[in-house]
Amino acid sequence: MMKLINFDHISANSLLPEVKESMIEAVRKDYHNPSSQHRAGEQAAEILESARVSVAELVNAAMPKEIVFTSGGTEAVNHAVKGVALANVARGNHIVTSNIEHNAVIRSLRRLKSAGFKVTSLSVDSTGRVNPADVADAITDQTILVSIMHSNNETGTLQPIEEISKITRGKKVIFHSDAVDSVGIMPVDVQELGVDLLSFGSNTFYGPTGVGGLYVRRGTRVFPLLDGGVQENNKRAGAENLIGIIGMGKAAQIAARDMDTRVAYLQKLKDKLLTELPDYIDEYIINTHPRYSLPNLVSLSVKHIEGESVLLMLDDAGLLVSTRSACATGSLRASHVLLSLGLSHADAQGTLVLSLGVDNSPEDVTTFLASLKNVVTTLREISPLYKKTTGLQR
Amino acid sequence: MMKLINFDHISANSLLPEVKESMIEAVRKDYHNPSSQHRAGEQAAEILESARVSVAELVNAAMPKEIVFTSGGTEAVNHAVKGVALANVARGNHIVTSNIEHNAVIRSLRRLKSAGFKVTSLSVDSTGRVNPADVADAITDQTILVSIMHSNNETGTLQPIEEISKITRGKKVIFHSDAVDSVGIMPVDVQELGVDLLSFGSNTFYGPTGVGGLYVRRGTRVFPLLDGGVQENNKRAGAENLIGIIGMGKAAQIAARDMDTRVAYLQKLKDKLLTELPDYIDEYIINTHPRYSLPNLVSLSVKHIEGESVLLMLDDAGLLVSTRSACATGSLRASHVLLSLGLSHADAQGTLVLSLGVDNSPEDVTTFLASLKNVVTTLREISPLYKKTTGLQR
Repeated sequence: MMKLINFDHISANSLLPEVKESMIEAVRKDYHNPSSQHRAGEQAAEILESARVSVAELVNAAMPKEIVFTSGGTEAVNHAVKGVALANVARGNHIVTSNIEHNAVIRSLRRLKSAGFKVTSLSVDSTGRVNPADVADAITDQTILVSIMHSNNETGTLQPIEEISKITRGKKVIFHSDAVDSVGIMPVDVQELGVDLLSFGSNTFYGPTGVGGLYVRRGTRVFPLLDGGVQENNKRAGAENLIGIIGMGKAAQIAARDMDTRVAYLQKLKDKLLTELPDYIDEYIINTHPRYSLPNLVSLSVKHIEGESVLLMLDDAGLLVSTRSACATGSLRASHVLLSLGLSHADAQGTLVLSLGVDNSPEDVTTFLASLKNVVTTLREISPLYKKTTGLQR
Repeated sequence: MMKLINFDHISANSLLPEVKESMIEAVRKDYHNPSSQHRAGEQAAEILESARVSVAELVNAAMPKEIVFTSGGTEAVNHAVKGVALANVARGNHIVTSNIEHNAVIRSLRRLKSAGFKVTSLSVDSTGRVNPADVADAITDQTILVSIMHSNNETGTLQPIEEISKITRGKKVIFHSDAVDSVGIMPVDVQELGVDLLSFGSNTFYGPTGVGGLYVRRGTRVFPLLDGGVQENNKRAGAENLIGIIGMGKAAQIAARDMDTRVAYLQKLKDKLLTELPDYIDEYIINTHPRYSLPNLVSLSVKHIEGESVLLMLDDAGLLVSTRSACATGSLRASHVLLSLGLSHADAQGTLVLSLGVDNSPEDVTTFLASLKNVVTTLREISPLYKKTTGLQR
């Protein structure tokens, strides 16, 4: 079987070896239900709480009980957005967000809109960032929630969360940030950021998919999304995915321990990619902010070609990339994120999301660039669009 | 370490050896994101869909896409109840349920009530069953949903689902059944039952905890609970817990294969327990229906003692039991289910939920009965309540 090179870490990070070991051990040990009152239940509860401590430390929560385990980033986001809206409806019905959020935020807000909530969706500038002054201007006496993502999942661009939280705190509005693509890839500190809620997913830090967390600052008024039992300090009902949570706890420990070297390593790969790219192809746009961005992500719009074709041809060469959020696969529409940046439809369609991981090597970057050059050359040769815009007619 | 005997399978079933193997292999293989378009994504999608086929076959769904994978029974129930209510609010705002449902249903309905929905909660008879005629009487032209559980998680008593579905179909009302404690323990066939939605959890059939499913009959109008990406045929957003789903798929396969022998074995253990019980203790009530009940569950109210004390003393002897739903742990109130059956508070407090599994042996039952006798004798000797009611004064 061909060796695959994963440049699609935003869709799936590989599990760290230590995480695999912890999960295999968890499967073998097969713990009982943490809510049971007998010794087997107590043992499971200890394991659960120990994972919670590791995750709390990763985001610098003041106390472990501020962490709610969820089935992933999407549940965390739904919980935060819908839970705050429904719990605070007596105070107001207005929510402020940006127009580059992940579909988990956008569609949760759409659901709330049909229930009577009002939503102001802010534009970003041409670099892909929200202007904090726009947030301040958008807040009214009816505003109960501001939800602005920490990093964008298609461009990797970071938002000015600290500046925004100064505004929300001043105006006593709850602030949620979707940090699903940041936590574990770069330092994320809920105290420094000043957020009230923060959503994240375990797979971003090389833990299992299908498990995540929501940080809820003590005193923040939010309803559960899943009603039922009293698990998770009464914030999230349902028997826990303990095997996944154990893997997440281990991944969080390692992310905290290795954060500096991880960031430096990813940034080095990204810098290599960006620096050497002009030696391989021309006529492209980098949509990722040169300074405020994830250390592992590059959004690259290659002119005169279609991203889907590049993806499939790179796949043939054993290189995994994506053209947009995996969550939006199947949609034929151009990315709302890229259009918000001011890209044309044509350029948006020629976009690749390149996301690096700790399992990539500098050699992988070189292999990728060489393959990309071949693919782009081939596709442009057969592209009527390319011939037209470059004036070539054969 | 003392060998533990698990009579608390309702809180946690052990993973089958084949399920453990499949999960360990899944951890090692570490699949990519099923939504990704490259070969690694396609491989993951195939694995996901193959698990969906196994689960669909277990409940006899007409097609695999009628199965939505969730993070467990609680999410499935929340999805069904809230999703149907919100999707059908233009047709009406009335819901019919019973007063012995799991907290996942009760609290989801409470949430809907505060949003303006009306709920009729039906009483059960002294055997713990809903009268289908009461369902017919409760349905109005505003009724959009009937939600009645398949088996009760504290008594094991089965509800007359087939009879109720004849009524809901006749009146064109959507019918959901919470079958979390039934699917995999006994045959559950959505065609025979005639339900539109059915909630279930993987751990009931010896798969992992924290993963479950919702059967949604084609054409049933229900909103997603988790909004975001287009996963699960647009019914449930969020990257999948593929390791858990793989374990669930394997467990479903085995449950379907072994159903007859599994039911017979569990029923044999249960019969032994019930038959021999009078040889060990006196003055008790069996709350489980003698005929219409799960093959693995006995609800036993021992008079003149407190269930919690029995639980702790049995735990000392290495025997795991529960006093009620693990989801309700920490609540000091007597079980709403037992009070609904007409039990006194005192008898409700003396209740043990004994749930058997395929990993129990006939010898376990004998060991349990001997320990129970010791514990009950000891507790009654020191109980002022027992002395009083039996007239003894030392």
